[in-house]
Amino acid sequence: MQRPLILVTNDDGITAPGVRNLVNFMNEIGEVVVVAPNSPQSGKGHAITINSTLTFEEINLEGPQKDYSLSGTPVDCVKFALDKILTRKPDLVVSGINHGANSSINVIYSGTMSAAVEAGVEGLQSIGFSLLDFSWDADFTQAKSHIQEIVKKVLKNPMPKGVVLNVNIPKLAKDEIKGIRVCKQADAKWEESFDQRVNPHGKTYFWLSGYFNNMDTSSDADEVALSEGYISVVPVKFDLTAYEYMQDLKGILE
Amino acid sequence: MQRPLILVTNDDGITAPGVRNLVNFMNEIGEVVVVAPNSPQSGKGHAITINSTLTFEEINLEGPQKDYSLSGTPVDCVKFALDKILTRKPDLVVSGINHGANSSINVIYSGTMSAAVEAGVEGLQSIGFSLLDFSWDADFTQAKSHIQEIVKKVLKNPMPKGVVLNVNIPKLAKDEIKGIRVCKQADAKWEESFDQRVNPHGKTYFWLSGYFNNMDTSSDADEVALSEGYISVVPVKFDLTAYEYMQDLKGILE
Repeated sequence: MQRPLILVTNDDGITAPGVRNLVNFMNEIGEVVVVAPNSPQSGKGHAITINSTLTFEEINLEGPQKDYSLSGTPVDCVKFALDKILTRKPDLVVSGINHGANSSINVIYSGTMSAAVEAGVEGLQSIGFSLLDFSWDADFTQAKSHIQEIVKKVLKNPMPKGVVLNVNIPKLAKDEIKGIRVCKQADAKWEESFDQRVNPHGKTYFWLSGYFNNMDTSSDADEVALSEGYISVVPVKFDLTAYEYMQDLKGILE
Repeated sequence: MQRPLILVTNDDGITAPGVRNLVNFMNEIGEVVVVAPNSPQSGKGHAITINSTLTFEEINLEGPQKDYSLSGTPVDCVKFALDKILTRKPDLVVSGINHGANSSINVIYSGTMSAAVEAGVEGLQSIGFSLLDFSWDADFTQAKSHIQEIVKKVLKNPMPKGVVLNVNIPKLAKDEIKGIRVCKQADAKWEESFDQRVNPHGKTYFWLSGYFNNMDTSSDADEVALSEGYISVVPVKFDLTAYEYMQDLKGILE
């Protein structure tokens, strides 16, 4: 039997420790092809490259997988891999492991999750992984067995069309992780406060800054599960229609 | 009574005819402040600027509104406007009018809609408008009365928290537009085919290309409404949780 073909991508760039760890974990499960950005793409959301060109190159990194670096966004990587690099349809697309959380509302800003969503749009099984640790030398190995378990279970139990997974891993030692909890996206947001500075030429400029505000205390919210030591898994869909409001809206607009 | 405060943004840049038309339409309804990108930002999705700085300037354009141009993405514009420019909470945020469709799956790639969604995350009433005409000199006036009608009705009938509107307008003359239809996001996707070329130095490069494939023929799909001559209005939410799959997923993963 053919080993499953697993496409790996991320948004921190092809050399980021997070994706190299994910590649190592996936090499034990299937045949791995990596197509990832040649530079960090955090916060790129579902951006695509339409007004400039793309280049790619095969690079040699440790391990049995093939590695291709692309001059584009995470979503570009998925599109390009499917059209130009892979010779058969992948059984699974995994994105990450992101250096930093993509829980709750962060799903909509995340390049990691946008790559996973793009794979879902293409009709593929797809999972995004993120660790709640922004550090470049974060420890990604503590969740290895859980990540491999989730991947194997998804390969065995394919998700319905239109659903991908958003997996977030708490920053805890291996034996402190309490397990896996299926969650909903917590109701949370960033409270912005732009940091204002003046450059040496007297011109004012700003850095996006702020703090994260979780407003959701329900037991099945991903932020709550993470704070209690669980790996959160949110099934994410990309049909954004608010069906429950359609009838009221018809009454107002039609 | 105070006139409603309307924040206007877009993704084609502050001087694009689409946003200038929308500003003119909104000036007849409320007090208008424009905070829009200083350069085209199409396809930027929900990108935010986190690894570089932002600058803005007030510019003088025709009309009673105030115009601010920002060196960021559409989502940056909404965040920046709320934190640094507006002195009171806007009654409505409108984004667009985009030069080109943001119907069906295009909602997830669209800077126009990401700005609208960001406003929704901030707890504001919000609408994105797009015209099915990529041309820079497209006629935006044919839908003026419909756009103003939608805005007035939303101001009068606030939407529930977590819902924003995605409005697409067919490329038709005023008397050919059949009316407004509340729709769901059609099941559709882009079939990619990257266009491969060689530069003068012998290096291969690619342009993202492809064609749009609508797979949804249901009468309430936005693509169908548009093809039948209606303005499509999809209520869009940003809680991406696939609630209907949570129970099954618990059985698989927990």
